[in-house]
Amino acid sequence: MNLKELVYKTRSYRRFEESHHIDIKTLEELIDLARMSASAANRQPLKYLLYNTSESCDRIFPYIAWAAYLKEWDGPARGERPSAYIIILGDKSITESFSVDNGIAAQSIMLGATEAGLGGCMIASIKREALRNDLKIPEKFDILLILALGKPAETILIDKIKDNDVKYWRDKKNNHHVPKRPLDELIIKV
Amino acid sequence: MNLKELVYKTRSYRRFEESHHIDIKTLEELIDLARMSASAANRQPLKYLLYNTSESCDRIFPYIAWAAYLKEWDGPARGERPSAYIIILGDKSITESFSVDNGIAAQSIMLGATEAGLGGCMIASIKREALRNDLKIPEKFDILLILALGKPAETILIDKIKDNDVKYWRDKKNNHHVPKRPLDELIIKV
Repeated sequence: MNLKELVYKTRSYRRFEESHHIDIKTLEELIDLARMSASAANRQPLKYLLYNTSESCDRIFPYIAWAAYLKEWDGPARGERPSAYIIILGDKSITESFSVDNGIAAQSIMLGATEAGLGGCMIASIKREALRNDLKIPEKFDILLILALGKPAETILIDKIKDNDVKYWRDKKNNHHVPKRPLDELIIKV
Repeated sequence: MNLKELVYKTRSYRRFEESHHIDIKTLEELIDLARMSASAANRQPLKYLLYNTSESCDRIFPYIAWAAYLKEWDGPARGERPSAYIIILGDKSITESFSVDNGIAAQSIMLGATEAGLGGCMIASIKREALRNDLKIPEKFDILLILALGKPAETILIDKIKDNDVKYWRDKKNNHHVPKRPLDELIIKV
């Protein structure tokens, strides 16, 4: 798969075959992709927590807010939930500034997940303090993103954006539609 | 090239074959990779300025600070400078929050550059107001990152980090060394 195919296939999946086990070695290989990606001033301040058991996934699930635009949907039902999570932390003992690193690392990981036959979603809408308390995540770490991973069990379709409306939606067949801006709207001249 | 090879090959290059022309179609294809990458709440607030002529590259070059850790080096000399730039802007008429999107898009672009036989460097150390004035970039856009691109003309070697020293350096053969933290330092348990 060339990179264009990989990027096009890397959609934000929120429904999965929950019974599909993801082994820890696979998660470690994804973190290695993040490790070898660019880091501002080469500081490498990101740390990672990995979860791949049904017990640990059940524990993390309640702290995530799913799909803000789908008001009628509370997130994936039992049986279609993620089978692994990666929590990306920012180590404040190294720097207080993580923003570009975070996106770079997350994208390397999600592209790697696609190549491994998986898919998932980057989630920033997190009940951070409750999660921190439950997992006992030390205060020196900022909780930056949760990457939910699994074997995708939904169809995602890309539409051309209309009337500047960026809200994704589901059709009657339960396919997930994502409106994307066209290239000529993104490349500007000044 | 699989993704691991692509990520490992995507280093931060700062010296190039300046005479190597990069056509605008190649830059547009890189932006398409960013376009199809994840965006927080699907807002897609990033815009892009593309430059691939020697005149435009000469104009942008002075606004960039190169390689903070190399105190003796003022940046690439004439003949080894980038032959294209992408300026990533955040459109504040869409949102004021760009951080994760910025890194995601930049990583897709830089991986695409590697696949296209190019390389480059994400640069956040920018004389932003001077650049804005010169290029007449409207106030509604935040200047987020500059991606310098070209055909790499330097050797970059990855070293295992020692004594927590993240500073990259150049050896007597002018090879560029980058210390990286090992995987078992990044994957933590709490």
